[in-house]
Amino acid sequence: MLAITFLGTGTSMGVPMIRCRCEVCHSKDPRDQRLRSSIYVQTADRSWVVDTGAEFRIQVLRANIQNLDAVLYSHSHADHIMGFDDLRRFGSAPGGAIPIYASKETMQNLQIAFSYAFSGEARFPGYVLPEPHLILGPFLLGKTEIHPIRVEHGNAHVIAFLFRQAGRSVAAYVSDCKRVGAEGLKTLEGVDTLILGTPCRREHPTHMNMIEGIALAKRLSPRQTYFTHLSHDFGHAITQKELPENVFLAHDGLRLGL
Amino acid sequence: MLAITFLGTGTSMGVPMIRCRCEVCHSKDPRDQRLRSSIYVQTADRSWVVDTGAEFRIQVLRANIQNLDAVLYSHSHADHIMGFDDLRRFGSAPGGAIPIYASKETMQNLQIAFSYAFSGEARFPGYVLPEPHLILGPFLLGKTEIHPIRVEHGNAHVIAFLFRQAGRSVAAYVSDCKRVGAEGLKTLEGVDTLILGTPCRREHPTHMNMIEGIALAKRLSPRQTYFTHLSHDFGHAITQKELPENVFLAHDGLRLGL
Repeated sequence: MLAITFLGTGTSMGVPMIRCRCEVCHSKDPRDQRLRSSIYVQTADRSWVVDTGAEFRIQVLRANIQNLDAVLYSHSHADHIMGFDDLRRFGSAPGGAIPIYASKETMQNLQIAFSYAFSGEARFPGYVLPEPHLILGPFLLGKTEIHPIRVEHGNAHVIAFLFRQAGRSVAAYVSDCKRVGAEGLKTLEGVDTLILGTPCRREHPTHMNMIEGIALAKRLSPRQTYFTHLSHDFGHAITQKELPENVFLAHDGLRLGL
Repeated sequence: MLAITFLGTGTSMGVPMIRCRCEVCHSKDPRDQRLRSSIYVQTADRSWVVDTGAEFRIQVLRANIQNLDAVLYSHSHADHIMGFDDLRRFGSAPGGAIPIYASKETMQNLQIAFSYAFSGEARFPGYVLPEPHLILGPFLLGKTEIHPIRVEHGNAHVIAFLFRQAGRSVAAYVSDCKRVGAEGLKTLEGVDTLILGTPCRREHPTHMNMIEGIALAKRLSPRQTYFTHLSHDFGHAITQKELPENVFLAHDGLRLGL
């Protein structure tokens, strides 16, 4: 069993964007209101989030998350980490540690931005207490294998995650990515549910656009593909009609039982 | 003219707190739902915010803020700065700078946590572009004098702000403070509206509690005092009845025309 809840499906600026007068930013469709991208994953024996953007607290309350065994980080751009401090309400016990999985570069950036939490100096009771785990290869969370895939996103080091259970590639989360390399494509082969970040319609220097996302979905041909990390380029109702069969726009709060 | 809108009135963990089962955290009274503390100040010729916590984007959208000439920081604790990146939607023009006023220590911490914005290296168009102004003494925003007051808050360097217009001390915002020193008390003498952070009922090592807040209000005897930076210790309706005349609990969205 693996369930994925989309805690947020927005780009770095969210939707609506501050001071934007466009139709999507003023849409009444709740599916057009997107907090920063993050997913909550639940299995029979563990639960974790990927990324903690600025609105993490709101996302946790909205999804009524009571339990969190680990946090995985895709990378350390602001829209993926700035809610880190709100992890203080989790941990195994009051004052207990919360396991943080990240690449070396991302962990270093977390340690810089949240030095008070990592340094161990002048700790107040109640500070978030991270337990750092560097991602160096596949690892286990309970009985689920997590396969990290390094993908291209400009100068940033981004990790996509493939979740495997009992020899089956259940789902992959590829949030910020311009290109998946040959090795990554091989790892993703046969994945059942593919989640891809496709923020825009235009060509973008560091992200796949919608067309590139559709091409990747076609190439990997998973059972279903969900697009996330969406900007105001996409009104949900209209855009969904433009997508191929088995390709869907995600929206905040959507839950996939896989 | 000076108007203050409370963008948030909560402590570092907000209200409701994640995973809390208490009555206030489950209250249906919207005044018991508190985002992280911040105020929006409007005058005839300028507007600014004090602090940008993690939920800054939500707060801007909720208050429909279209204009921001400056940002003032009280200090650099996580609950006061983690929404910094969302300032990118302001600035004088697309790609334009936004003036940031902070103490030397706070500015340094902002520069560490948001180095991509300050460093000038590898800038993407659309990054927030801060224009740093170190707070070294009183300064002007339009015709309003801003008087910084250094206050005690554990090991952190916190600045409280007094807003003066035409020789009149219109309002003061003292967010995170255990004690105001003799010089600060003198500066605050005669203030019309006092806003004080009083997170809790119990004795706290780095904050005034409600009793200490009431004592300070009595000592300075402003026309009115508002308490902010409130934890789940305070159900709005019940707590308001405990307070002396002219002392009030603030709530998110409250607007004071002064």
